[in-house]
Amino acid sequence: MAIVTLTTDLGTKDFYAASIKGRIYSLCPSVTIVDITHEIPPFDNEIAAYSLKNTFKDFPKGSIHIIGVDPVEKENQKHVVVFQDGHYFISADNGVFSFLFNKIPRQVLKINISDISKETTFPAKDVFAAVAAHIAGGKAITEITSGKHILVDRNSIVPTLESNTISGHAIYVDSMGNITADITKATFKQVGMGRDFEIRFRRPDNSIKKISSYYNQVPKGEKLALFNNCNNLEIAINEGSASKLFGMKRGDIIRINFSD
Amino acid sequence: MAIVTLTTDLGTKDFYAASIKGRIYSLCPSVTIVDITHEIPPFDNEIAAYSLKNTFKDFPKGSIHIIGVDPVEKENQKHVVVFQDGHYFISADNGVFSFLFNKIPRQVLKINISDISKETTFPAKDVFAAVAAHIAGGKAITEITSGKHILVDRNSIVPTLESNTISGHAIYVDSMGNITADITKATFKQVGMGRDFEIRFRRPDNSIKKISSYYNQVPKGEKLALFNNCNNLEIAINEGSASKLFGMKRGDIIRINFSD
Amino acid sequence: MAIVTLTTDLGTKDFYAASIKGRIYSLCPSVTIVDITHEIPPFDNEIAAYSLKNTFKDFPKGSIHIIGVDPVEKENQKHVVVFQDGHYFISADNGVFSFLFNKIPRQVLKINISDISKETTFPAKDVFAAVAAHIAGGKAITEITSGKHILVDRNSIVPTLESNTISGHAIYVDSMGNITADITKATFKQVGMGRDFEIRFRRPDNSIKKISSYYNQVPKGEKLALFNNCNNLEIAINEGSASKLFGMKRGDIIRINFSD
Repeated sequence: MAIVTLTTDLGTKDFYAASIKGRIYSLCPSVTIVDITHEIPPFDNEIAAYSLKNTFKDFPKGSIHIIGVDPVEKENQKHVVVFQDGHYFISADNGVFSFLFNKIPRQVLKINISDISKETTFPAKDVFAAVAAHIAGGKAITEITSGKHILVDRNSIVPTLESNTISGHAIYVDSMGNITADITKATFKQVGMGRDFEIRFRRPDNSIKKISSYYNQVPKGEKLALFNNCNNLEIAINEGSASKLFGMKRGDIIRINFSD
Repeated sequence: MAIVTLTTDLGTKDFYAASIKGRIYSLCPSVTIVDITHEIPPFDNEIAAYSLKNTFKDFPKGSIHIIGVDPVEKENQKHVVVFQDGHYFISADNGVFSFLFNKIPRQVLKINISDISKETTFPAKDVFAAVAAHIAGGKAITEITSGKHILVDRNSIVPTLESNTISGHAIYVDSMGNITADITKATFKQVGMGRDFEIRFRRPDNSIKKISSYYNQVPKGEKLALFNNCNNLEIAINEGSASKLFGMKRGDIIRINFSD
Repeated sequence: MAIVTLTTDLGTKDFYAASIKGRIYSLCPSVTIVDITHEIPPFDNEIAAYSLKNTFKDFPKGSIHIIGVDPVEKENQKHVVVFQDGHYFISADNGVFSFLFNKIPRQVLKINISDISKETTFPAKDVFAAVAAHIAGGKAITEITSGKHILVDRNSIVPTLESNTISGHAIYVDSMGNITADITKATFKQVGMGRDFEIRFRRPDNSIKKISSYYNQVPKGEKLALFNNCNNLEIAINEGSASKLFGMKRGDIIRINFSD
């Protein structure tokens, strides 16, 4: 029983996500559909990618992930299927894959279901649902694709690394106010090499000098830094909201200075 | 494996929708339950009908649709099962069917499960879930109904048609700010007969003179009109919010003037 | 096919709940997952318990309920599985069970999956999902637990009963503005013994002298009291919001005075 996940900016108020589900069930009744989230900010590929990057490996290999954010096919933004790390991803080639994978995926096929991609106002339903059901039903992908596709190269912002400094950004603020940076545990170890450090953000007096293992390692209401479930650096308040307390939002700079 | 969909005004914060699901699974474990939306404005049959009208055909024939909006049984508002276009609809006869179907459905049965309909404060769970599970389980509908029912006739607002003008209304504003009118492609073609036209709304200088095929046929930030996935006229901004930009809300007049 | 339900404070915007689902499906593909709600106020065990208390019996016996609210394991707050009334409950022993059950559950086992409980920042995924999948898969609970556990005793607020008075509190305000009190039908009958009564709240002139059977037993816009689907006293407005009209919120006193 294949799993199809949905990551969209369609919201939960409207009936659009249900339309996609109905279409998938009509074409492949035995599938299991799981919402990643429908509350991606409109057209925000970076948040879509971050949300899926942190979840898709929790699903069984062979799962099919529909990305319904900025899904319209354009001259420079084709509908594609990507097979990577044992999972299928269905999306427009709109830059989302630059954020989603650390390396450029090589198994990329151009979707080709007659002319629907060009004609529809609702490609997540009319194209992506059909492709997902096709794959979930065990049919050959070649029947609905027209050969290999090279993803358009779109640069994503990455942390700046110097010998004593990592300069990154807040890339995600969750609904509890935890702030995730684009600084991974691997980068932290590589640059830091075990040295003492100071994490700085927003104001000169905001400083954290150690990495906690879990939230409640500091007293309630205290700030902390940890590497979260996704191995990204996270600034948090134990049982509180770091984004509110520090007035931090996505895009703000988070810097780690290592001692000489 | 039958599908049961839920369209309610119960919201997502509370546990009520989950109660309905639990009851259905208890009575018929093999069913698949899909949320259309639980964010219908309270008691708003028109939005409930519009949401379901635009989605039910995406589901497989034989699907069962629970409408849990204004569901209490009253003297003039009985609990009914409607079979139409290959789908089952379970609701109170509160006017929702006048909006949902273009023609009056003829296969309408009065629900009759002992006296539960009269006694419950939560008919979507205590009555509709039981009826849905009964149908999903392949049992005879006659066991839980007491013969034919004539739906109460409640008029819905329809566009005014003149020889050179269609005068309709905004009936739905989605979370992206797209505005759907009660003007269908069929009506547009029938009155327009290929003539030039001007779509007017809100202010005299808001005017659209052509129908686009998709959102990005106009530059980003520009207004457009198209017939959406549901064949209703939609006023939109490419990658923007028409309802915000034009200050439009549900009920506002949208008029199409055709040239002589 | 086992059912796993989720009650968390993770919200619907983020991808966290989807991570939990992915993990469960990876470990036990045949399971059915149902959201109770993900909009429990952060760390609010009382609302979590109330939400689950009112829904779990709607699900089939043998269902598995994950409570992902304040889930971190601490010295005095261990990860446990509780088996009660034919259902499994997986949670941290954080006080939620004092609100969830009227009697102290006796079948309580301490979860013991290597050291994951201590090390994770996301126990609802790393611990609770694994335990749920283990139980759903029909494996022996003893494999993932280390013997009996005595729940930490945490007192919950209960109504004060006198010979002529019940003094309770608003414990839940739903999204429609209905206000549920911690006064049950059983308590009402036991103290009242059929006497006349007056329900008082907020202001001296707010008074209700009878119990309705359903909302529309009073005219639209009128206040009423009834015992809801969960047998708790509920203050409501027919087709309106009691919490808005009376300015009532959780914790406010609701008193019933019986005549001598």
